[in-house]
Amino acid sequence: MIDPKILKGFRDSTPEIMIPKKKIIRTLESIFESYGFSPIDTPALEYTEILLGKGGGETDKQIYRFKDHGERDVALRFDLTVPLARFVSLHFNELTFPFKRYHIAPVWRGENTQKGRYREFYQCDFDILGSQSIGADYEILDLIRCGMETFDCGKFVINVNNRKLLGGILESMGLLDKSSAILQTIDKIFKIGRDEVKRILVSDNGIDAGKIEKLLSILKLDTPDKSGITGEEIFTSLNELSGMVSNEYKQTAADMISIFTFIKQAGNLDSFAFNPAITRGLDYYTGIVFETFVEDSKGFGSVCSGGRYDNLTGLYSKNVVTGIGASFGLDRLLALLEDKKLLGGDKTVSKAVIFHLDSNDIPYYSKVAGVLRNGDINCEMIFEKQKIQNQFKYAERKGIRWAIIAGSDEIANQTVNLKDITTGTEYKNLPINEIAVKVKNA
Amino acid sequence: MIDPKILKGFRDSTPEIMIPKKKIIRTLESIFESYGFSPIDTPALEYTEILLGKGGGETDKQIYRFKDHGERDVALRFDLTVPLARFVSLHFNELTFPFKRYHIAPVWRGENTQKGRYREFYQCDFDILGSQSIGADYEILDLIRCGMETFDCGKFVINVNNRKLLGGILESMGLLDKSSAILQTIDKIFKIGRDEVKRILVSDNGIDAGKIEKLLSILKLDTPDKSGITGEEIFTSLNELSGMVSNEYKQTAADMISIFTFIKQAGNLDSFAFNPAITRGLDYYTGIVFETFVEDSKGFGSVCSGGRYDNLTGLYSKNVVTGIGASFGLDRLLALLEDKKLLGGDKTVSKAVIFHLDSNDIPYYSKVAGVLRNGDINCEMIFEKQKIQNQFKYAERKGIRWAIIAGSDEIANQTVNLKDITTGTEYKNLPINEIAVKVKNA
Repeated sequence: MIDPKILKGFRDSTPEIMIPKKKIIRTLESIFESYGFSPIDTPALEYTEILLGKGGGETDKQIYRFKDHGERDVALRFDLTVPLARFVSLHFNELTFPFKRYHIAPVWRGENTQKGRYREFYQCDFDILGSQSIGADYEILDLIRCGMETFDCGKFVINVNNRKLLGGILESMGLLDKSSAILQTIDKIFKIGRDEVKRILVSDNGIDAGKIEKLLSILKLDTPDKSGITGEEIFTSLNELSGMVSNEYKQTAADMISIFTFIKQAGNLDSFAFNPAITRGLDYYTGIVFETFVEDSKGFGSVCSGGRYDNLTGLYSKNVVTGIGASFGLDRLLALLEDKKLLGGDKTVSKAVIFHLDSNDIPYYSKVAGVLRNGDINCEMIFEKQKIQNQFKYAERKGIRWAIIAGSDEIANQTVNLKDITTGTEYKNLPINEIAVKVKNA
Repeated sequence: MIDPKILKGFRDSTPEIMIPKKKIIRTLESIFESYGFSPIDTPALEYTEILLGKGGGETDKQIYRFKDHGERDVALRFDLTVPLARFVSLHFNELTFPFKRYHIAPVWRGENTQKGRYREFYQCDFDILGSQSIGADYEILDLIRCGMETFDCGKFVINVNNRKLLGGILESMGLLDKSSAILQTIDKIFKIGRDEVKRILVSDNGIDAGKIEKLLSILKLDTPDKSGITGEEIFTSLNELSGMVSNEYKQTAADMISIFTFIKQAGNLDSFAFNPAITRGLDYYTGIVFETFVEDSKGFGSVCSGGRYDNLTGLYSKNVVTGIGASFGLDRLLALLEDKKLLGGDKTVSKAVIFHLDSNDIPYYSKVAGVLRNGDINCEMIFEKQKIQNQFKYAERKGIRWAIIAGSDEIANQTVNLKDITTGTEYKNLPINEIAVKVKNA
């Protein structure tokens, strides 16, 4: 006998997990498509050379890499961005830009399995490639808002910043050469606090303490507030910053003001903040960056993050492809919805179960099931004849609300008895074609 | 620069491929769920020991196998049945039986890439575990019928046979010890012809020529007809066979008659055949087996196949789990629908595109887009200001039918001009909330 064990860091999705997961995925797909993002897919396996690119990061150690049957050096993808870059480089001439794609698929990382992190997890990416317009920036932000509203998991704030604008401030303060260290340290301010940020930048990076004080003050990070700058203050703040940067960066400030103006005009300013502390760790980003937090569940981290980049395909192609993209964290969303008891906990997709009284009546049970399916009610029938109590027990164990029972009298009249197991209410002698409506309206 | 090449035997799915693929997957999901099958998922990577089981088959050579970071011997799944067996063994005590699951996911086989076969492909499996009832057999067959009707790709026939019934015939003829060779050879009769079947069984397996003649005659395979036995003849034929087998097998014949009677009562006999030549190669199957062919596209092979098995979990658990399962061939379905020009060839999910005349009007474009999305119309906006001809060109290249154009007059009136690019028809000054209806009814 072989032990049916599962690899460490991997997990099965039983129906109880997979039903809500599919629901989230379908919701995301439908939102992506409503905004004109089309689905693509890429192979799970690629040449290692392609996935590692320049290499040197954490990824090198985490990637699942091996030799295939043809002695090729191959690996499992660890994200969906590198495959997108390879995809766009390869299909550049077939694609019409701006190219808007989404990709929902698993990725694999052999990382440490502490803290509820898994070695196989889904990413839900969406990107607009080949447009530098603030219209594209705005659309990505608006899509996130629409998604968060649809998930309806409580008050959320999309925190927006712009790395180029921060660059302009740093330049005006003569700190541009330290920008990488500064951005990465500021990004941690909510975790480590203002004083530690100062200490790191002064002691470890040799930056003048007065300049750090001034920078934190300019960025309203004197008393770091996770909520960022909200409401009309956003515009005041951006105007102030615009006054401080050189001409080169004034357009960036103006663009940020335009984006927040669009948001305001759509009546959605409440769902956004300008947050100069959000810089995103990756050097990869070059413009607008953002993270999304649910107010009473900040511990779950950002539910949707992303930003603008200047050149996606640099490693694989001479064609320069700018873009903006973001990613919903499926597992975080799932954990958050579960934490808020918004998942339902269904053990089956069936809403109704047709009881089995006589095996000769399977055609009638099947007919009833067909009528229910046409009425968009998922249902199943019990296959074996057994005590009626056991059939109720089965329905209860699976959490199926509706029991449908038809004996010879009902069959003669082409009706059923419909019972709501949760309340005990029973509808006797209900014509077959009235079941779906009863179930839907209950 | 790194060459953005893809591994041999793998392929990208561009939107043109992925849009119809998703459509098929969604249709299957919705049918599976309407019959009460719940989704599950299992890891792409498993212990090699688990995937290979007893080993010795073709699979051993094809499996992608390697050592992970912890020096574990791991491999990518090559089908969804072995992971299901492991899953059911591991979660046996949590599951309520009958357990009905579906699983749509990629699998990997490093096989030869000739003849349009890929090393990564999707399987769409559905199984009923823990029921030996003919109700379960009938339901699986009825689901396949429902699926094929939904795909609407022409007249199809689900060819049904029963390995146990064949066993009964072979027993009555004193051929039971040769049953493996006989079933495997008969399975090829449409490919190699009646005479070659006879030659193989007589010369290679030493079976008496007269007995083979008799067997082929009993099974109506004298003049092999891919269509199998149809209509009322099914019952005549099954009754004849029932008369020939020992008591042990009479119930099997009666069950087959019951199943076809259920099918007949539901008015679906036209979509089925009893086909004694369909035996399915695998020893795995122990009862009813079936394959589905589209009449004018038999070259594509079976679109949905499967059968009943006695013990799924034997390798991993002492619990005996019987079941019946089947699998839709996603790639075959896709190829078949493409061949019949039923796929649409869409390059984008967008049905409408909102033109860009003035960047200050992005909020209005976005508002129009929002109203369309609420009306279930996928749409996108053009991000950059550009010549109107170029915007039409973009729409045409992407195959988007509807252009929405709003200048200052329209915006003042909260209307748009809606143009059907395929016909040239234009609706001037259309109120925003009337666009969706116009687009849907066109």
